[in-house]
Amino acid sequence: MGLKLRTVPGGTITSPRGFQAGAAFAGMKTLGEDRRDLAILYSETPCTATGVFTSTKIKAAPVVISQKHLAKGCAQAIVANSGRSNAFTGEQGLEDAAEMAALTAAKLGLGPGEVLVASTGVTGVRLDMETIGAAIKGLTLSRQGGHDMAQAITTTDTFTKEEAIAFELGGREVTVGGIAKGAGMIHPDLCTLLCFLTTDAAVDGDFLRKAFRRVMAVSFNMLTIDGDTSPNDTVVLLANGVAGNDPIRGGVGAEAFQRALEGVCIHLAKCIARDGEGATKLIEVTVEGALTEQEARMAARTVASSPLVKTAVYGADPNWGRILAAVGRSGAEVVESKIDLFFDDICLLKGGTPLPFSREEARAVLSRTEVPIRIYLNLGTAKGTAWGCDLTEEYIRLNSAYTT
Amino acid sequence: MGLKLRTVPGGTITSPRGFQAGAAFAGMKTLGEDRRDLAILYSETPCTATGVFTSTKIKAAPVVISQKHLAKGCAQAIVANSGRSNAFTGEQGLEDAAEMAALTAAKLGLGPGEVLVASTGVTGVRLDMETIGAAIKGLTLSRQGGHDMAQAITTTDTFTKEEAIAFELGGREVTVGGIAKGAGMIHPDLCTLLCFLTTDAAVDGDFLRKAFRRVMAVSFNMLTIDGDTSPNDTVVLLANGVAGNDPIRGGVGAEAFQRALEGVCIHLAKCIARDGEGATKLIEVTVEGALTEQEARMAARTVASSPLVKTAVYGADPNWGRILAAVGRSGAEVVESKIDLFFDDICLLKGGTPLPFSREEARAVLSRTEVPIRIYLNLGTAKGTAWGCDLTEEYIRLNSAYTT
Repeated sequence: MGLKLRTVPGGTITSPRGFQAGAAFAGMKTLGEDRRDLAILYSETPCTATGVFTSTKIKAAPVVISQKHLAKGCAQAIVANSGRSNAFTGEQGLEDAAEMAALTAAKLGLGPGEVLVASTGVTGVRLDMETIGAAIKGLTLSRQGGHDMAQAITTTDTFTKEEAIAFELGGREVTVGGIAKGAGMIHPDLCTLLCFLTTDAAVDGDFLRKAFRRVMAVSFNMLTIDGDTSPNDTVVLLANGVAGNDPIRGGVGAEAFQRALEGVCIHLAKCIARDGEGATKLIEVTVEGALTEQEARMAARTVASSPLVKTAVYGADPNWGRILAAVGRSGAEVVESKIDLFFDDICLLKGGTPLPFSREEARAVLSRTEVPIRIYLNLGTAKGTAWGCDLTEEYIRLNSAYTT
Repeated sequence: MGLKLRTVPGGTITSPRGFQAGAAFAGMKTLGEDRRDLAILYSETPCTATGVFTSTKIKAAPVVISQKHLAKGCAQAIVANSGRSNAFTGEQGLEDAAEMAALTAAKLGLGPGEVLVASTGVTGVRLDMETIGAAIKGLTLSRQGGHDMAQAITTTDTFTKEEAIAFELGGREVTVGGIAKGAGMIHPDLCTLLCFLTTDAAVDGDFLRKAFRRVMAVSFNMLTIDGDTSPNDTVVLLANGVAGNDPIRGGVGAEAFQRALEGVCIHLAKCIARDGEGATKLIEVTVEGALTEQEARMAARTVASSPLVKTAVYGADPNWGRILAAVGRSGAEVVESKIDLFFDDICLLKGGTPLPFSREEARAVLSRTEVPIRIYLNLGTAKGTAWGCDLTEEYIRLNSAYTT
């Protein structure tokens, strides 16, 4: 029996102690009325840090700078902007991203290498360094600033994504918090995934990196909106140790910490799927009985990202053949005659044989705002869950609009 | 200078000599008015044959039967139906597919192993073997029957896909012909790719298989509609040798034969892309200067299949960042500062640096019914071309409709 976790009401990135955040206007967010588009996260003490970035070979400038700064395994602040992504901006873009870090470091009395940088928005356009400089200078930080930062990094997101989970460890309360932005765009462009995570736990650096990688594999790596990858994708975790616990390395503390981090990340990933461009529904695909976890995850991801599955769910069409087709081409080992398939608790296929089912009941499941699809391969014991969203006319409308 | 190829006017699968085809009603095509939905291709003499089938692990019954029959490298007929795909139909489906072959063989006086089977349509529903049997029995074959067969295998295709190319070899006229069906569906389901190819050339079996594989790599393997793969995908080539040429093994004859086969297959692949579900435009993506052909093809395919590129082309939005993002995540080796990017002859990016361009002219290119996107990686000498289509609200409408 592990330690008991609790969700922090109104929890966000500044729920863990010793973190401050704030947001300001730099005027690059061209969507609607003027909204804050620049934010800073600051830890009052140095942090052990780790992160994962876009796998694309053409990385946006802020990703290049952040990877460089993060190489030493520590950081103390993050500066992020929305409106322009500083991607495909060449040498100038790298200078601008480095300057964002330097300006933030100067404000906070840190070395530039202690500051990470993240951007989201239109590509191929230089940042306005004058307004960014002024915004950084004028920005006010506070221990309640997490929500403002969550707001500032959104683009066409329809709601902010925030979460915090706490537990008690040796008499100390430890909290993990996070914010994310997802499938939004400024004048339809790439959906960037940005996620910033904090914890006041003292955590051994090696364990932190391992736990982070394990959690990524079952959370953000299992999230699919439309199969495109942004050059700006960034997930970063800062641990400042302010909780004063004995550094977490193993045992019940490590187990609880990983569960808390997983809880925060899966919550944020599901929020991003639910808020996918044009989406009306969250699709949760669970594959059980695979030979390996990797195969279970591949199969779940392939189903969740199939345009034919996504459009069928949009239309509440119980066209289960599309799900079977996606499983079959996923690369996972499957035997048709062993597969069971469910929409929630409605069985459509048992041992590869179609069962009679009530179309009305099946359509009722597919009409929910959360659609659970469950697939049993019955070959092994491995399991994986992926999250996606339906594909709608609104996705097309959002993404076919002109950049000017 | 190779042999001169010529396109055969009105060319189709029965343009090569010694082939007959015909179509009949079996009543399984539920789209609109009653249309012929069963067809047979027959060669008057035995053929050297080769094929490629769906890569999915859950194959439709006709694919399983055809792979078995084709294993010996020869065949003399193909029976195909549209309306029901005989996929996800278990043991009964295999028996039905085998029976389709046996009934066709009986009609033609062949062994069942000489007949290949192909199906397209809704999944998970048994074929109606009674009407199929009657249709096979009543079907009339003729040397002009190619177009009827092309028509019978379509589902929601808006036009038939047919082509034939001929050349003279040692005083004998040699022809390669083909028909295909693509991104259509019967009550929205999987888009099956079916393609049947014929030639009256005498071709050495080993060379035939090699040439076929090479041509597949640059034609149907470079075609992307929506990233989904059907359990029924089938491309088959029959060579009956009726032209009476010396069997093609190498030299100018081999070179011309491969070019003719490539011409037919690329024409059919482009027709399928142009007629993709809901598509309004054909997108042709050429990647040059890659380190390897495999990487050039990967990059071209990734761009052509990106939902964000497809929606941008639909909206005639010159949002080139999306193209660069797709190239970057394709897995191909790329260096941002070396990339040139063109819409036809309009240069948007030179050495990774955005150039000023006329948005009106760029939008004019993106408004054509064929949109050429050219990418120069400037790292090597390898080249690849992929074909796709735009992604529209109509795709969503077609695919979110109910199966009943």
